[in-house]
Amino acid sequence: MVIIMNPEATTKNISEVVKSIEGAGLEAKIMEGAQQKIVGVIGDKTKLASVAIGAMEGVENIVPISKSYKLASREFHPQSTVIDIDGVKIGGDEPVIMAGPCAVESREQILQTAEIIKRGGAQFLRGGAYKPRTSPYSFQGLEVEGLKYLAEARERTGLKIVTEVTTVEGIAPVAEYADVMQVGARNMQNFGLLKEIGKTKKPVMLKRGLSATIDEWLNAAEYIMNEGTSDVILCERGIRTYETYTRNTLDLSAVAAVKHLSHLPIIVDPSHGTGKWRMIQPMAFAAIAAGADGLMIEVHPNPAKAMSDGSQSLTGEHYLQIMNGIRKISKFMRDEKINPIVA
Amino acid sequence: MVIIMNPEATTKNISEVVKSIEGAGLEAKIMEGAQQKIVGVIGDKTKLASVAIGAMEGVENIVPISKSYKLASREFHPQSTVIDIDGVKIGGDEPVIMAGPCAVESREQILQTAEIIKRGGAQFLRGGAYKPRTSPYSFQGLEVEGLKYLAEARERTGLKIVTEVTTVEGIAPVAEYADVMQVGARNMQNFGLLKEIGKTKKPVMLKRGLSATIDEWLNAAEYIMNEGTSDVILCERGIRTYETYTRNTLDLSAVAAVKHLSHLPIIVDPSHGTGKWRMIQPMAFAAIAAGADGLMIEVHPNPAKAMSDGSQSLTGEHYLQIMNGIRKISKFMRDEKINPIVA
Amino acid sequence: MVIIMNPEATTKNISEVVKSIEGAGLEAKIMEGAQQKIVGVIGDKTKLASVAIGAMEGVENIVPISKSYKLASREFHPQSTVIDIDGVKIGGDEPVIMAGPCAVESREQILQTAEIIKRGGAQFLRGGAYKPRTSPYSFQGLEVEGLKYLAEARERTGLKIVTEVTTVEGIAPVAEYADVMQVGARNMQNFGLLKEIGKTKKPVMLKRGLSATIDEWLNAAEYIMNEGTSDVILCERGIRTYETYTRNTLDLSAVAAVKHLSHLPIIVDPSHGTGKWRMIQPMAFAAIAAGADGLMIEVHPNPAKAMSDGSQSLTGEHYLQIMNGIRKISKFMRDEKINPIVA
Amino acid sequence: MVIIMNPEATTKNISEVVKSIEGAGLEAKIMEGAQQKIVGVIGDKTKLASVAIGAMEGVENIVPISKSYKLASREFHPQSTVIDIDGVKIGGDEPVIMAGPCAVESREQILQTAEIIKRGGAQFLRGGAYKPRTSPYSFQGLEVEGLKYLAEARERTGLKIVTEVTTVEGIAPVAEYADVMQVGARNMQNFGLLKEIGKTKKPVMLKRGLSATIDEWLNAAEYIMNEGTSDVILCERGIRTYETYTRNTLDLSAVAAVKHLSHLPIIVDPSHGTGKWRMIQPMAFAAIAAGADGLMIEVHPNPAKAMSDGSQSLTGEHYLQIMNGIRKISKFMRDEKINPIVA
Repeated sequence: MVIIMNPEATTKNISEVVKSIEGAGLEAKIMEGAQQKIVGVIGDKTKLASVAIGAMEGVENIVPISKSYKLASREFHPQSTVIDIDGVKIGGDEPVIMAGPCAVESREQILQTAEIIKRGGAQFLRGGAYKPRTSPYSFQGLEVEGLKYLAEARERTGLKIVTEVTTVEGIAPVAEYADVMQVGARNMQNFGLLKEIGKTKKPVMLKRGLSATIDEWLNAAEYIMNEGTSDVILCERGIRTYETYTRNTLDLSAVAAVKHLSHLPIIVDPSHGTGKWRMIQPMAFAAIAAGADGLMIEVHPNPAKAMSDGSQSLTGEHYLQIMNGIRKISKFMRDEKINPIVA
Repeated sequence: MVIIMNPEATTKNISEVVKSIEGAGLEAKIMEGAQQKIVGVIGDKTKLASVAIGAMEGVENIVPISKSYKLASREFHPQSTVIDIDGVKIGGDEPVIMAGPCAVESREQILQTAEIIKRGGAQFLRGGAYKPRTSPYSFQGLEVEGLKYLAEARERTGLKIVTEVTTVEGIAPVAEYADVMQVGARNMQNFGLLKEIGKTKKPVMLKRGLSATIDEWLNAAEYIMNEGTSDVILCERGIRTYETYTRNTLDLSAVAAVKHLSHLPIIVDPSHGTGKWRMIQPMAFAAIAAGADGLMIEVHPNPAKAMSDGSQSLTGEHYLQIMNGIRKISKFMRDEKINPIVA
Repeated sequence: MVIIMNPEATTKNISEVVKSIEGAGLEAKIMEGAQQKIVGVIGDKTKLASVAIGAMEGVENIVPISKSYKLASREFHPQSTVIDIDGVKIGGDEPVIMAGPCAVESREQILQTAEIIKRGGAQFLRGGAYKPRTSPYSFQGLEVEGLKYLAEARERTGLKIVTEVTTVEGIAPVAEYADVMQVGARNMQNFGLLKEIGKTKKPVMLKRGLSATIDEWLNAAEYIMNEGTSDVILCERGIRTYETYTRNTLDLSAVAAVKHLSHLPIIVDPSHGTGKWRMIQPMAFAAIAAGADGLMIEVHPNPAKAMSDGSQSLTGEHYLQIMNGIRKISKFMRDEKINPIVA
Repeated sequence: MVIIMNPEATTKNISEVVKSIEGAGLEAKIMEGAQQKIVGVIGDKTKLASVAIGAMEGVENIVPISKSYKLASREFHPQSTVIDIDGVKIGGDEPVIMAGPCAVESREQILQTAEIIKRGGAQFLRGGAYKPRTSPYSFQGLEVEGLKYLAEARERTGLKIVTEVTTVEGIAPVAEYADVMQVGARNMQNFGLLKEIGKTKKPVMLKRGLSATIDEWLNAAEYIMNEGTSDVILCERGIRTYETYTRNTLDLSAVAAVKHLSHLPIIVDPSHGTGKWRMIQPMAFAAIAAGADGLMIEVHPNPAKAMSDGSQSLTGEHYLQIMNGIRKISKFMRDEKINPIVA
């Protein structure tokens, strides 16, 4: 942490700041130039949690330097994490594909989609049984009934299940039926939910919040990991910007950023990230080329009849075509040992 | 809802779209120009929830027109809502002031702050007993103990209490001790929480999400109101932008927007909105001049020792000075019948 | 400037960085903790312009600390600047009002508007003769003819003229007819234009760029001042955010920020800032209460026939009403010595 | 264009709106539902430029539907444009690579870099002779001297030259020495510059503005094309968001968007788009996989000594390595006929 003092800060102001830092058991270093005075803080800055340096006299600004997450950080865990879910590896050599409808709408829809998904080579079936929707009047999901359809699809196809949990009460049923529990963008900083999910020790996929920084996102992962779960998968799904042509702005540079800052695997959701089915293919290919550990893609047997997000869902036909491209590109990159990530 | 067709959309594409609309019990109107074809939809668009027009062939884009919230809308409730909390009116002639520390830290801190708050003329004491923090290693709040300190301060001073609820399990204790339950920015779309809070029928203050549109914010209010609570106060607390000088960008135009779109009262939080104590005074004055129904201000007896948000907290002295200005400006505006809001 | 080293940075990496800093004639201070190593740089960082520390081995990040603008900075010029334009003071006790249509459309329109503007108490007539428009097919302005109409209106009413200059070739005519030359948001970083304008030594009003930080804005002012012009007025006109209800998000906290960081006067444009005529009144009142030195407001005798920006223009009637409120509020604040800006 | 009326709009309000539309020679269609009334406008909306419908009584909002650009639009020009610069094709089968330093710093630097660039397989040498910099005290470029060094490098290597033009006066020298003139992000809406550049009829590379929408960007291209230049290359270089880890947020979905909306070629600049040399490789690979027509990459023989943007420049070694990957991936995609863009 670096504390920038006002140009008019007095010697007394500076020594008060130094006293506070040292009082918290940390070391302070003063740097004084002609027009600026800076106080550097060395040591574990969480010790300063109860001292509001920023409110002290003469303080202009505070610049944080060390990260507040540890378990999610590559600094403390240099080896990349590979999560093994009954043999399906996330963060390993091959990209993992999670596909399926935005929402579970009916038994038929899920079983039918699962067949297509399986055929294309995906390892996970996705589908929301609990849907967080902007309006209370939109379809809110089939809840436990939906979870059962997903489980039935798993039995038939061998696909793993990833589905969203939106409330603490929903953790138990979702943990019972799902292989991976998903935390949606709107709940990325629902800390109560994160903590309870962390206690289950089940694998979690944590979507990036609508306007979360990468730092906040890794801190959210830290909330889960701090409760004992080490299997956290991050999912970039687009951030909110001023651009309205796309639903969100898919931030593929987050893949490289996360790979540098964290050891956790990261996948990409081009469906929510763009909101337009036409853009899923180029963004899926791009994500793989950028080094993503996998993809989450919306597929619906009949997008025009989807109860939510239809215009960003692929038909089965398009899905199979995209999967074909993904398989080729990722195989080529593995064979040629083209690793996009710079250590 | 207006559906914009591709320039290459065929007559068959258009008639399929029209058929879908009519199949949902709505009326469709086709507008056809030289280079564009549009289909307008008239009626309650929630009927279209199960039809993904956007995924139909020939459809380029969909432009929503009617709002999806009703209970929160001024269209259906032209009279402004005044919330009466044991005689303190929110949304009435005088601005209501909610002041206090970011977090409840100790009995002494709260009792001492309450005295100052009271002296300055505020009607509400604020203070978080449950703190949603970016890092799991930051101070998380005193929980029920904190609520009890707030209640004790109420007994001594007669101030009302507003405090944040962050989890469904926290609703019962917060509802027991608080006069107004606060939903924080990070939980604005925690729909499970909103629904459960709505069932208590207690007054709620709903902060705008970090990057929520006004439309999403009013839809979040709708979730609460749809469960039976009619007393919802909105609170603008700054939105996330690219600017880093301020913690957030306080969007005072949201006051006028909300007054136009909704009948609910709206207050402004210049402390979180700017993140800098120096900016609280100008933004507080500005909020009142813009027509806000009140303010939420962070005050700490010793900001430099605050366990969170110290640099955006006012000292008691600054608080009293600001309150003096607010009182004068708002009285002048009332006396002179200067109403900033244009009907 | 503070240089944050990688956790794996070697002693050699650090000494290379220190050598580079010292080689540029600056002093370096090393701070070394358990998990982080920092190098602080003291002195005039412009000396480092030709050394890309960020690209040196072991460097994780660079945090700038001192500001790069000097002439615009309050640090080097503590006294607030008051610009005197033939007796009209900008930055003094009374707010200055600049009003008029978005674009000069005809002689009649300008003369008629000038009369209304004058009656309401504004000191400046605004109106664009050169219009920067998103589409090349939109109305681009009357150019020199428009400037002449403005000059005629000045002769008749005694109002000063402020009008936009968009190109280097346009500087000469605009400087001839205008009292204050305006640089629009889209040209805030058109550095060639800024430099040429600065050479004229005429007063300039510099609008904030669509997504300019306050730091970039003050650096743009520095470009003008560095050529010899000291009379620069800043104008906050809203920034680009994800919110679509308003045309831009008016950042009134910029008023307090600029007052803290700079000695230059700052005015606010609620017309472009909101894009909705209904919001001009509340935001104009708020700007004055926040301590703005003036306002720029769009007024059109017949907004529904305006050739650009009609829906954000006030009718004459609304304008007179708003001016009445502004006059009252600002007089009250002066009389009561209510100064919103905290030194 | 669709005009949304207030719920309280009267029949007279609506008929006034219709009259205005018809008065401009357009056709109006009224859609009236229980709670909403809409007026659709059919025909060339530029005819409405002089009527501010938004300011008419009873009008709530206006939703534009047709695009205002024509020459840049794929609607009017379905075939993708391939720009041929003395045999180097941009928009054809193979991606074109533009590489070189941010700024031309010396003859040696440019000649040395050109050799490396050439060896890696790039077709264009980039390097700024005129540099638009945030601060007036930063290095501003070698100007004509720099252009001459670039020309000398072309002679020696056969590489084409792309370099930025920042002012109207700079057009003549840049047009004399460069093969492609670059318009930088800060000048994307410097319409005076765009028009003058368009008159030269030389190929132009138009970077996306810092916070430009895709619509504004294509309109900026329209300004150039409207003057007679048909050879416009678009360049995505990252947009401004709240995220601070990267310098900008590289919006790769813009590639797919532009391919859908326009016939112009689009290339990607991962150097400015991320601001971190470590991220150039993954984002370069991703851009190619997303269907970009080429890349612009910063390379410097000694990034640590670069006079600007050093930390986002590649060393020669890294550049050669990345080029190797790009070549392999793009060849594979061509051979396998993997086209990411969905028509």
